[in-house]
Amino acid sequence: MNEFELIDRHFRRPPHNPDVRVGIGDDGAVVAPAPGMEYVLTVDMLVEGRHFAAGTDPMRLGHKALAVNLSDLAAMGALPRFALLAVALPQSDEAWVVAFMRGFDALARQYDVELIGGDTTRGPRNLCITAIGELPAGSALLRSGANPGDLVYVSGTLGDAALALAVADGRSDVDPQAGAALALRLDAPEPRVALGVALRGIASSAIDVSDGLTGDLGHVLAASRVGAAIDLASIPCASALRGKLDSGERELALACLLAGGDDYELCFTAPPAMRERIDALAQALRLPLTVIGTIGVEPGLAVRDEEGRPLARLPQAFDHFR
Amino acid sequence: MNEFELIDRHFRRPPHNPDVRVGIGDDGAVVAPAPGMEYVLTVDMLVEGRHFAAGTDPMRLGHKALAVNLSDLAAMGALPRFALLAVALPQSDEAWVVAFMRGFDALARQYDVELIGGDTTRGPRNLCITAIGELPAGSALLRSGANPGDLVYVSGTLGDAALALAVADGRSDVDPQAGAALALRLDAPEPRVALGVALRGIASSAIDVSDGLTGDLGHVLAASRVGAAIDLASIPCASALRGKLDSGERELALACLLAGGDDYELCFTAPPAMRERIDALAQALRLPLTVIGTIGVEPGLAVRDEEGRPLARLPQAFDHFR
Repeated sequence: MNEFELIDRHFRRPPHNPDVRVGIGDDGAVVAPAPGMEYVLTVDMLVEGRHFAAGTDPMRLGHKALAVNLSDLAAMGALPRFALLAVALPQSDEAWVVAFMRGFDALARQYDVELIGGDTTRGPRNLCITAIGELPAGSALLRSGANPGDLVYVSGTLGDAALALAVADGRSDVDPQAGAALALRLDAPEPRVALGVALRGIASSAIDVSDGLTGDLGHVLAASRVGAAIDLASIPCASALRGKLDSGERELALACLLAGGDDYELCFTAPPAMRERIDALAQALRLPLTVIGTIGVEPGLAVRDEEGRPLARLPQAFDHFR
Repeated sequence: MNEFELIDRHFRRPPHNPDVRVGIGDDGAVVAPAPGMEYVLTVDMLVEGRHFAAGTDPMRLGHKALAVNLSDLAAMGALPRFALLAVALPQSDEAWVVAFMRGFDALARQYDVELIGGDTTRGPRNLCITAIGELPAGSALLRSGANPGDLVYVSGTLGDAALALAVADGRSDVDPQAGAALALRLDAPEPRVALGVALRGIASSAIDVSDGLTGDLGHVLAASRVGAAIDLASIPCASALRGKLDSGERELALACLLAGGDDYELCFTAPPAMRERIDALAQALRLPLTVIGTIGVEPGLAVRDEEGRPLARLPQAFDHFR
């Protein structure tokens, strides 16, 4: 099978969005937002051996590769619309492509994301997705909008994916039922799309927690030229992880909670006056939205332990070039 | 140096286009076309060992990685506007990044392309660029617009890059001066941006010759549900290549001319009534625009040799999965 047949069979499909003027199959795709709308563009590259292990279930990978991009759009408050998919594969492997696209398509359908372009080549396995979202002009949730006095929120629970990885690597263990739930968070993260869209006009800033809470919140603080104090005890996490905070595995638990990436929850800030609206949103979305601290004037991030004392040393956020 | 410092130092720069609402440094970039305009999006992935050799001059690579994307935009008739750059590097190598970005930026400045986002990670060297262009709604040059009776054109000369590669691989040789000119075509292709934009309203279809003339023209024929007959003798090429057509290297010369990719010229079709406008365009752009054949009703591509007889066998287009 050659490159073009591969594309024809598995990537090309009839366009279904009216604002896709030209979809897959030309030198480029043609799109236009509705009047008064803006596009949000984001790109993520996933590399075998770095972001996923060789032999990873291609269907889960198809889900995750798109999910991490939709998470970026969610963090901007954008509604996902389109994606471009560039793939390097070590060999022509139709079964792999079919499974990968099954995972990709299932998530794409869930959020009505249309694949409008791509590229395929041979090479070390690499998945590079560009995602395009849409939002009303001026409504994007930026990292730079946090103000002193704002509350710091996170959605869902943090550290699940990092603990799942630690369990998979034999660095920790949990009971099998908890392990299955954690593994699902690592393998099939759910981008917080509905939350991101709903936070327009409510949140003052937002970011997705892909590299770890302290690192990602740190980006918000730097962009907003503010600081924050957060409470370890208030950071929502799975009970399996909570238990380890009081055990010989405290260091590992702290690293999972504060520096574990891959959960793809949103961390956002909002003025205290928005608290009721955010509580109502949490109920409507059936998703915990938890206050973990407050924004202050002093630069820097302080994490207070269970006794209210600042942690002396923060675990480092994940960095692809360390 | 960590990932974020690398981005800060070499990728981030102040936005200069007013329709870039948010540039690099957030979860996504925010852009919006002017009223009545559409965006064209395209993505290309370049892999070390596949599209370029290990040790390739990073500055030339920075030029080429962007050039191949601008070429796709040109083939749509779009004016380049923005780019997103995802890069996997085997190690943190600031000198490489600096040189790569020097090549990238020089071409980006030439065409006023703003880098609005990206991703960096460690992994086998891989460059994935998403380029975004703009054009008036409905004016995109598609592969599907060729009509029987249209003339088939190519810009510039074909086969230069393929011959340069053959020379570099020791499969052929040319005199040093010709060799230098050919090598430049392989290493630093010039995307036909001005031509693509000028062909709006003139060309009935267009594609860039990235994989070889017969393969790329074949895509136009298939999308337009037409056929074509082209004349080998009329295909514009360097004199070094022309000479080889009458030599023991005829097979190699045919392969370069008909199936050599990487020239990034445009192949387009237009009704004969457009001939004068196209000639004037060639003069204005100082770029040869040569008629190489005509579109017909019968499906398929016939290439006539110097005596007007159809070539029995066409060299195969480059295919990343053969």
